[in-house]
Amino acid sequence: MKLSVYLSGEIHSNWRETIEAGVAKAGLEVTLTAPNTCHADSDDCGDRILGSEENNFWKDHKASKINGLRTRKLISDADIVVVRFGDKYKQWNAAFDAGYAAALGKSLIVMHGPEIVHPLKEVDAAAQAVCETPEQVVEILQYIMTNQLPA
Amino acid sequence: MKLSVYLSGEIHSNWRETIEAGVAKAGLEVTLTAPNTCHADSDDCGDRILGSEENNFWKDHKASKINGLRTRKLISDADIVVVRFGDKYKQWNAAFDAGYAAALGKSLIVMHGPEIVHPLKEVDAAAQAVCETPEQVVEILQYIMTNQLPA
Amino acid sequence: MKLSVYLSGEIHSNWRETIEAGVAKAGLEVTLTAPNTCHADSDDCGDRILGSEENNFWKDHKASKINGLRTRKLISDADIVVVRFGDKYKQWNAAFDAGYAAALGKSLIVMHGPEIVHPLKEVDAAAQAVCETPEQVVEILQYIMTNQLPA
Amino acid sequence: MKLSVYLSGEIHSNWRETIEAGVAKAGLEVTLTAPNTCHADSDDCGDRILGSEENNFWKDHKASKINGLRTRKLISDADIVVVRFGDKYKQWNAAFDAGYAAALGKSLIVMHGPEIVHPLKEVDAAAQAVCETPEQVVEILQYIMTNQLPA
Amino acid sequence: MKLSVYLSGEIHSNWRETIEAGVAKAGLEVTLTAPNTCHADSDDCGDRILGSEENNFWKDHKASKINGLRTRKLISDADIVVVRFGDKYKQWNAAFDAGYAAALGKSLIVMHGPEIVHPLKEVDAAAQAVCETPEQVVEILQYIMTNQLPA
Amino acid sequence: MKLSVYLSGEIHSNWRETIEAGVAKAGLEVTLTAPNTCHADSDDCGDRILGSEENNFWKDHKASKINGLRTRKLISDADIVVVRFGDKYKQWNAAFDAGYAAALGKSLIVMHGPEIVHPLKEVDAAAQAVCETPEQVVEILQYIMTNQLPA
Amino acid sequence: MKLSVYLSGEIHSNWRETIEAGVAKAGLEVTLTAPNTCHADSDDCGDRILGSEENNFWKDHKASKINGLRTRKLISDADIVVVRFGDKYKQWNAAFDAGYAAALGKSLIVMHGPEIVHPLKEVDAAAQAVCETPEQVVEILQYIMTNQLPA
Amino acid sequence: MKLSVYLSGEIHSNWRETIEAGVAKAGLEVTLTAPNTCHADSDDCGDRILGSEENNFWKDHKASKINGLRTRKLISDADIVVVRFGDKYKQWNAAFDAGYAAALGKSLIVMHGPEIVHPLKEVDAAAQAVCETPEQVVEILQYIMTNQLPA
Repeated sequence: MKLSVYLSGEIHSNWRETIEAGVAKAGLEVTLTAPNTCHADSDDCGDRILGSEENNFWKDHKASKINGLRTRKLISDADIVVVRFGDKYKQWNAAFDAGYAAALGKSLIVMHGPEIVHPLKEVDAAAQAVCETPEQVVEILQYIMTNQLPA
Repeated sequence: MKLSVYLSGEIHSNWRETIEAGVAKAGLEVTLTAPNTCHADSDDCGDRILGSEENNFWKDHKASKINGLRTRKLISDADIVVVRFGDKYKQWNAAFDAGYAAALGKSLIVMHGPEIVHPLKEVDAAAQAVCETPEQVVEILQYIMTNQLPA
Repeated sequence: MKLSVYLSGEIHSNWRETIEAGVAKAGLEVTLTAPNTCHADSDDCGDRILGSEENNFWKDHKASKINGLRTRKLISDADIVVVRFGDKYKQWNAAFDAGYAAALGKSLIVMHGPEIVHPLKEVDAAAQAVCETPEQVVEILQYIMTNQLPA
Repeated sequence: MKLSVYLSGEIHSNWRETIEAGVAKAGLEVTLTAPNTCHADSDDCGDRILGSEENNFWKDHKASKINGLRTRKLISDADIVVVRFGDKYKQWNAAFDAGYAAALGKSLIVMHGPEIVHPLKEVDAAAQAVCETPEQVVEILQYIMTNQLPA
Repeated sequence: MKLSVYLSGEIHSNWRETIEAGVAKAGLEVTLTAPNTCHADSDDCGDRILGSEENNFWKDHKASKINGLRTRKLISDADIVVVRFGDKYKQWNAAFDAGYAAALGKSLIVMHGPEIVHPLKEVDAAAQAVCETPEQVVEILQYIMTNQLPA
Repeated sequence: MKLSVYLSGEIHSNWRETIEAGVAKAGLEVTLTAPNTCHADSDDCGDRILGSEENNFWKDHKASKINGLRTRKLISDADIVVVRFGDKYKQWNAAFDAGYAAALGKSLIVMHGPEIVHPLKEVDAAAQAVCETPEQVVEILQYIMTNQLPA
Repeated sequence: MKLSVYLSGEIHSNWRETIEAGVAKAGLEVTLTAPNTCHADSDDCGDRILGSEENNFWKDHKASKINGLRTRKLISDADIVVVRFGDKYKQWNAAFDAGYAAALGKSLIVMHGPEIVHPLKEVDAAAQAVCETPEQVVEILQYIMTNQLPA
Repeated sequence: MKLSVYLSGEIHSNWRETIEAGVAKAGLEVTLTAPNTCHADSDDCGDRILGSEENNFWKDHKASKINGLRTRKLISDADIVVVRFGDKYKQWNAAFDAGYAAALGKSLIVMHGPEIVHPLKEVDAAAQAVCETPEQVVEILQYIMTNQLPA
């Protein structure tokens, strides 16, 4: 069993690396994908490639559309979309990804701390699993792929 | 030409009423729908109908699932989904609705102030129109339905 | 807001009539549909219309296919599918309907007593609401259609 | 010709191993998949990975949702879904899988003894083949993949 | 319950009129549709409207494409497609309609005499019911719409 | 039989009015729809409603997106899309509409003069009918809806 | 460029072998698939595997359903479906396959002699190419895959 | 990350070769595909393979349909469709491809000079990126596949 898993959301902690290490250690055939997590580049890519804009709205617009070429492809290829929410940022793009993935029939795993359960209740309601740590994501993947529960 | 328009997002201002009044004044055949905007009821519906939960996660979960019966139906019936973001709340459910609607091929109109252009850039990038006021939403509906531009 | 609701499952109690009465009393614009609940006719329709079979397998096969003309149409027209399980019968057709509806993206409400929670866990996991009584189904419909919670 | 075949249903007999051995002996390029057939683990996975629940409903709910990550992926990847019913258990999840697979347009093979033809008539009516033994499943696969009938 | 039923196939007998009369007598809310059953017009429509062709292949091509505007719309609007085969003509268009309808997920009722069971076995295998007379089609429609079996 | 027909393409001749008159005279139940055919308004709608842009690219972009709210809805509601090409303008939006409609499975009727057969060959190849005059469009609609050929 | 091509229809001539040889000679990466072309086995497979039937209708039914496991899979995997009609047999299954493939959006190539153009006009109208010989099918495949026209 | 990119439009300049060279230099796993860019062959293929036509309309028709076998396959396999417009030709087939790809949910990149912004506004409005040079297409592909922006 192989899986393609897209990791959406928070870019200011190393949760993606933790999942990557855990999946590698468990020897799972998982393809992990993600958006461009370099904040500056994902903001500037439109201006850098297509020419600069005076108006920030259009600068953002061109950048988001180019980044969308990547994210649309990777989400549409994914079996499972993991979405990580922190408590500091708005992360509307993460919630957008979750809704987008849900409507495509992708399975969702949502990861966040207990202090933001309430504002995330609609997102959690669309998920197959709600967890708090990247280690739990690895345990879920290991269990569904190999039938092995954590010790 | 008739349209069904779902109004998602902010529940602490009267933007829905402004659109409703504008559409009525313009005589447009628009069916406006919305989530339950009573915060307390939408939080309590699970406990009230299906029995109370000690754990708030499950209380929220049951409520969100019941509210989802309404929102899934109304979004799937909509031609256009308007999503309003304010600058105070997380509104992850609004961003989730936007992603959900986009993946279903619904046309999006996003409404928000200029101060939150940057965190909403991915949502805006999926929209057919980005505006700031409910009056602009009415003008857009009037124009696409009757070919009349505002004076 | 109008809804079309298909009532699948148990045919040996009057739960459908209770929902019908409740919906009528609440004045909801709900179209309630159901399979043919006459056990004898639904068993005999193949033989009666298309000619009798000596082999019971083919008698059942022809009957099920004809009944399927009705159920496929009604489920595909439904916004919500309610599935009722009792504790006495196998009701594999009810579970089949639930799976069929889930895969079509229909919203599910599952109704059953607490003694069969465990064997129904996979069906419940696909539902937007799990309840025990037809009165709760009416309350859910009333709430999502009119925003009114039970007193 | 390659096929992906999902084996749903009864977990208390060795029918899956019989199919696996038969397919291997015949040299067919078939990928056989199945749900987690360890009853205890599939019941406990939610509590073990995501934390324990006092309420059995939610324990079951979390477990079913996690198991669903596996089954949804494998059924959606399958060309054919084989569903085995015994006469002892409710197996509503097997009937749910059958309905789910049918609505996705997957081909169904249903396997069960003659004593439960009647309660399974709606499931059988959706099948491409109804048989009694795992050996017949192997013969069907061998025939459709190699054009060879059993001697 | 309302149904839309498309009547495909044989144009040299009055089976459509028999169904129409039966449906009217039973008071069923059925919309019956059909291809243009005037053989000459359906052959000539391309030349008459779009200009004459010297080559019969293109004359037939233009006519078939125009007739296709009607049949594609009516089949896509149908809940049930009834296909009637006689024993005299090739009626490849009827078999084409049956395959087209089956792939769209429409329910099929196939009507033909016992002498052509064998060459129609693949078409029959895709049907919900196989019958011999238009009266049986009416009985099926009456049963699935009103739960009444013939006396 | 009712039809919804979207009239795309050339805006500098009165072909839409000719079709409208012909359809009315023939008493056909056809809903005719079209893009906004006021060139100035369709260019200016973005600036007028959403605020003016210095850069013409973005002015055009905002206008096209708003006009797209109308055209996406009307094409998705249409049974048939008629596309008219003249020999003077680029009309890339008309060809875009044709491709868009074809991929949605809509039936196409293409109308143009004989001098542009060659550059339109790919568009024509996707059509159910290719004609030269609006009167022919009316004749096609009358024939497929009433089975009456022109005298 | 790789293609998967399903060869449906006539089983009494060697047209499939001619295409196979031509494709091999041209070095094209084409996967050719076909139904079981052994007439006796495709008639008997149901009885042989699932047990004999007294009634020929059900014998044919079981066989057709089993053969359908193969053909549904291969047609759904195909990029192009080639359908060959001879002038001697009814071949309703070939026309059914053509309709089925067309509704799935597969590209059709139809092959038949000039004497049956008229009864096949609706099938031809759905095709991307109509030809008479297997050599022409090879030439089409070679051209679309390598841009080389026949000398 | 691998991508399949279809290059539609202008055939009189070497923009495809520039992209091919750039992609190769950057070491990207991109499969580039294109229509047959030999003008004469794409015009003559119908006559050459299927027999000559006196009427140019049918000559073009047969050729376009055969070319469509290639383009339909390649567009449906593509993740991204790049469409290049020059200022000299009508290129209605390029705009048709753009609409077709957009309706299939493919991501579009449109490439053209600033002098034709206005007539292309509806095509541009459906794109994820609008650029002027093939080098920019390569930069976009490199960025979305490797997260590297041009120096």
